[in-house]
Amino acid sequence: MTALNSKQETVCIFGTGDFGRSLGLRLLQAGYEVVYGSRNPNNSALLPKGAKVMSYEEAPQRANVIFVAVHRKNYDFLPSLRPVLEGKVLVDVSNNLKRHEYTESNAEYLSMLVPVAHVVKAFNTISAWSLQSGGLDANRQVLICGNNVDAKQAVVDITHSLGLTAVDRGSLRVASELEDLPLQLFPLWRLPLRISAGLLGAVFLYVLIRDVGYAGAVEKKDKSFRIMISLANKVFPTVALVMLALCYLPGIIAAFVQLYNGTKYRRFPDWLDRWMLCRKQLGLLALAFALLHVLYTLVIPIRYFVFHKRANIYISLIKENKTYEFNDMWAWRSDSYLSMGILGFALFVLLGITSLPSVSNALNWREFRFIQSKLGYLTLLLCTAHAFLYGWDSFLNASAYKWWMPSSYMLALVVPCVVLVLKTILILPCLDRTLTRIRQGWEKPGKAGMHKNAKSSQPLIL
Amino acid sequence: MTALNSKQETVCIFGTGDFGRSLGLRLLQAGYEVVYGSRNPNNSALLPKGAKVMSYEEAPQRANVIFVAVHRKNYDFLPSLRPVLEGKVLVDVSNNLKRHEYTESNAEYLSMLVPVAHVVKAFNTISAWSLQSGGLDANRQVLICGNNVDAKQAVVDITHSLGLTAVDRGSLRVASELEDLPLQLFPLWRLPLRISAGLLGAVFLYVLIRDVGYAGAVEKKDKSFRIMISLANKVFPTVALVMLALCYLPGIIAAFVQLYNGTKYRRFPDWLDRWMLCRKQLGLLALAFALLHVLYTLVIPIRYFVFHKRANIYISLIKENKTYEFNDMWAWRSDSYLSMGILGFALFVLLGITSLPSVSNALNWREFRFIQSKLGYLTLLLCTAHAFLYGWDSFLNASAYKWWMPSSYMLALVVPCVVLVLKTILILPCLDRTLTRIRQGWEKPGKAGMHKNAKSSQPLIL
Amino acid sequence: MTALNSKQETVCIFGTGDFGRSLGLRLLQAGYEVVYGSRNPNNSALLPKGAKVMSYEEAPQRANVIFVAVHRKNYDFLPSLRPVLEGKVLVDVSNNLKRHEYTESNAEYLSMLVPVAHVVKAFNTISAWSLQSGGLDANRQVLICGNNVDAKQAVVDITHSLGLTAVDRGSLRVASELEDLPLQLFPLWRLPLRISAGLLGAVFLYVLIRDVGYAGAVEKKDKSFRIMISLANKVFPTVALVMLALCYLPGIIAAFVQLYNGTKYRRFPDWLDRWMLCRKQLGLLALAFALLHVLYTLVIPIRYFVFHKRANIYISLIKENKTYEFNDMWAWRSDSYLSMGILGFALFVLLGITSLPSVSNALNWREFRFIQSKLGYLTLLLCTAHAFLYGWDSFLNASAYKWWMPSSYMLALVVPCVVLVLKTILILPCLDRTLTRIRQGWEKPGKAGMHKNAKSSQPLIL
Repeated sequence: MTALNSKQETVCIFGTGDFGRSLGLRLLQAGYEVVYGSRNPNNSALLPKGAKVMSYEEAPQRANVIFVAVHRKNYDFLPSLRPVLEGKVLVDVSNNLKRHEYTESNAEYLSMLVPVAHVVKAFNTISAWSLQSGGLDANRQVLICGNNVDAKQAVVDITHSLGLTAVDRGSLRVASELEDLPLQLFPLWRLPLRISAGLLGAVFLYVLIRDVGYAGAVEKKDKSFRIMISLANKVFPTVALVMLALCYLPGIIAAFVQLYNGTKYRRFPDWLDRWMLCRKQLGLLALAFALLHVLYTLVIPIRYFVFHKRANIYISLIKENKTYEFNDMWAWRSDSYLSMGILGFALFVLLGITSLPSVSNALNWREFRFIQSKLGYLTLLLCTAHAFLYGWDSFLNASAYKWWMPSSYMLALVVPCVVLVLKTILILPCLDRTLTRIRQGWEKPGKAGMHKNAKSSQPLIL
Repeated sequence: MTALNSKQETVCIFGTGDFGRSLGLRLLQAGYEVVYGSRNPNNSALLPKGAKVMSYEEAPQRANVIFVAVHRKNYDFLPSLRPVLEGKVLVDVSNNLKRHEYTESNAEYLSMLVPVAHVVKAFNTISAWSLQSGGLDANRQVLICGNNVDAKQAVVDITHSLGLTAVDRGSLRVASELEDLPLQLFPLWRLPLRISAGLLGAVFLYVLIRDVGYAGAVEKKDKSFRIMISLANKVFPTVALVMLALCYLPGIIAAFVQLYNGTKYRRFPDWLDRWMLCRKQLGLLALAFALLHVLYTLVIPIRYFVFHKRANIYISLIKENKTYEFNDMWAWRSDSYLSMGILGFALFVLLGITSLPSVSNALNWREFRFIQSKLGYLTLLLCTAHAFLYGWDSFLNASAYKWWMPSSYMLALVVPCVVLVLKTILILPCLDRTLTRIRQGWEKPGKAGMHKNAKSSQPLIL
Repeated sequence: MTALNSKQETVCIFGTGDFGRSLGLRLLQAGYEVVYGSRNPNNSALLPKGAKVMSYEEAPQRANVIFVAVHRKNYDFLPSLRPVLEGKVLVDVSNNLKRHEYTESNAEYLSMLVPVAHVVKAFNTISAWSLQSGGLDANRQVLICGNNVDAKQAVVDITHSLGLTAVDRGSLRVASELEDLPLQLFPLWRLPLRISAGLLGAVFLYVLIRDVGYAGAVEKKDKSFRIMISLANKVFPTVALVMLALCYLPGIIAAFVQLYNGTKYRRFPDWLDRWMLCRKQLGLLALAFALLHVLYTLVIPIRYFVFHKRANIYISLIKENKTYEFNDMWAWRSDSYLSMGILGFALFVLLGITSLPSVSNALNWREFRFIQSKLGYLTLLLCTAHAFLYGWDSFLNASAYKWWMPSSYMLALVVPCVVLVLKTILILPCLDRTLTRIRQGWEKPGKAGMHKNAKSSQPLIL
């Protein structure tokens, strides 16, 4: 049995905070020797067992890689260490508390303070907590940037030893981008959340005026208690259906733009690009509203209001000594719209599940497109049919329009119908064939000239 | 601060399509120099900033690795480049539009065209889109094959620099397999989908004849409106329960086969192997049908038909001046079957969640088996009890048989009962002990001889 | 086209069981030459094509790395191979059937048997099955430990070639820890499962006595049928709400401890640490009970008992010739508590989804904290409001207390209210400011002295 190998590498960590301690522990577990640099080398409480603590001057001497786990505002002791740090790899792991706090990135600032060292930005996207939890769970990527290839390689090696994946993101100029990452708060969700907030507000106001306002002003009845469930159950399905349609609209617009341009080698307008990029988020929000609609619908028979209304129907039926005739058409209609809704919702849940990262990663491109496109349009079709059958012929009835305002379900149908009609046009054989060729790289002869050369002569890989 | 290191490697990309552009961008971000080879080197519209474009002859000169991001049918310019490509690494990233389009794989064809280069197949399972999205999300594996170890290593190094994982799949003969992967459409789901389609069709036909057909022919009533919900809510639970049982049946058959063979070192028949491999998919489809059953059940009180039926019951109760006596047994029965169903469904959802890749990857083998086997049988038991309690004693009643056809829930119980009985036999101590020993490598003395040597003398690791 | 490169490495595997065969197949696919060592080298049935089988003496000769895929109790042939194994890397992949079966780990035992070889523990956390399934799914980590750095590196290289991630966990002393991992059965779930079992039992007993016992003893009515749904639907929501509150209580206690200590650099008591570590599991169990509560609530209108009760209400209303007056306040109350419940449950589902490994890995620290903390407290607030509105003013009513026992929903409100009140205190500006400073590394002057030096002069990175 051999003793611990003599080649063991030493890594130095400046700073004994949470991140420094967690990193040191993982490095020790991975077989590195760890030396902490500290202003007070005698204070080693809470540091992992097996690590040494030295002064800032001594600690880096035997190490090639030094992690600077200190807040940027405490970098001022570093310039005095220049002789010791010359030619060594300084890893900046720091993050700021807000974005744009400083003009240059922490790593570039560090590089100006200690120009004799090779500064690498890394590990700032990894939290102390995920370093500690380690084990089978922490399969996160370490994003790395820096100007010196060998210095980056040294950090990549350490990253791999810790069982993490390293992604080289380029030169130190990228550092400010990496430092922004941990401060982001759902950047891709902003636009979809704003759209859904706007739609929720607008539809709520509409049904509030139409249902509660009209009843108060014209019928002199206080129906404000309907806000909690009846109105909510008009707002959520309307917004869900519109947002589901909004997922598929940009793809259709893009197809028409490509058909008009006669090529796929022209950039889409910015607003279309941004819209295309947040389709997944739009769809997931629509799913959330659809779930709320399902729950609000299923509690209907438990509501006091419904219990009361039904009791009165039964009582009046008996008092008037009527028999309640069975209406076959109504049975068909009621069962059909419920059935369409259930099938549409179940497919929608399936779409949601396949957009989970671990599921979509296990699909190949063809499978992913099949689900998100074919099954997606089927979902939209079922949900639109659900709304149509729910309304049935009530749009013919004058009583459906209060103050000339149509019922909310009619508004909900506008965008989905536009999307479905446009999609039907796009899958006409003549258009579909042209579009497929364009997407394989073909260009309309007249248009190709715009790129100076007839690139269309050589279709390229998708 | 050091300038960009001089050792920076150059990578060449033939082809400026979507994939070529996305790959170039990632390579530039990772610090490589990128040179595009193009028929029209002046046309660099849309190419990532920082990349150079040259002619096919010039571009590969300074690079060791050349990515061929061009459709196979445009490979014809490559043979003329032989002198420039000699000894270099050619990475074939191409995919075809359908399977079996050509007799040999694209990579082998490329290798025949340019025999002086080392051809490596790689990156064809990665889409341009997932290269672009990059960042924290794209943790997909790059499958690699090729005949030259050094050439493969060069591609592995590039893969790692891009933050991706490389999997060496062997020699270039495997290329056709890798080229098939992106063209697959749910290969493991085919059999389960066919089974469920067959079951759905058969059960639907059965209940259609029994419920709608019988009512039309014998009772002269049109009950066709029942198709939308009442029949659907018989078809889905029946298929769900049968398919859940079909998940566990192959494991039981395999156990009996092993007991009969007296060894685990004999291959199962092919049909059993195929069946075992799609158990997860069978179970997930069963879960989908169970979810539909739950939704169809919960909308019952909202249906017009139910509202009408209940109104008539209330009216007739009052007209006949009866008091509605409370039947304690009926209350027990109704509540018990609902309760069993709810618990069974909740456990079923738990099984579904643990089969998500990211969840099952976080479990060790023992935990996975505990959930999928122990909790799985508990789910089957609860769901079978749910169906039994639903039927109660109605199977004794002649009116449950129309045209001698039993109710669909009775059919649903056949397979689950067989599975549960066989499982009960298997956990009898005497059989269980033998089976455990067989699975640890023990072989029945008489049977072991079939492998020439008494391997049973040395049990091997599971 | 070049032939297979001559540098191809040879790997030896002792043992031809399931694991040995699966590993050999993967190694062959990755381009290694594989030689099996076997007591009976003529018996090569079931071994992967392309592998050789030799005697234990011959097999290791050309290989540097030898996998020992044999049960520990069969290690006794290894000491006789010492001359052949000298200086080679022996990889111990073995697992035991139960924990603490032997005093020292299998790998350390192997190292004592063959001291001339470098023993590395690895691959024991990977199952034969996940090696076989391979492809896009098996992104599991290989945990490695050993005393020799070069030996470990050789195993790391093989791991990478197989497309797996290697995590170096340190010296061979860690081996017993790695050998325990595959034998664990949900270690983090034990405490939460015990807490929930205790709560379920206690609340069930409470409502059993209060509802069924009281009715039997005082009202002389047999209400035991209520156990299946009515009681279950009191037990599950109570336990769900209490456990949701228990998720947030330890964080609040920790904040008060830090405020009292005036520093974050002091360890929490052990029970608090354990509690903090299982918050996720507590929350997921609470979500499971909340789902059961939702399902039990939604089946209410299908129950025979409810149908009977409603029929009697309608009949008595008609017999007494009453009109059923609409009570606006009751409508508000009924709709509000349902609405709060639905919104709370939907948010709870969102929390559950973000705790899936693949989703939480895609979030940065700030996003994760936003969801789990801000949205978590909002969920608790909504669910508590749901319970309050459900009860309304019934706590004022003497009939709500049977045998002086309050209704179960009142018990359910105790812990959530405590948590919400304490949290409100903590977000008071004065306390919040101090707490934020403490969490950024600041220490109360009087307390800092406890660590000998004024470390507070240098706030450290989080």
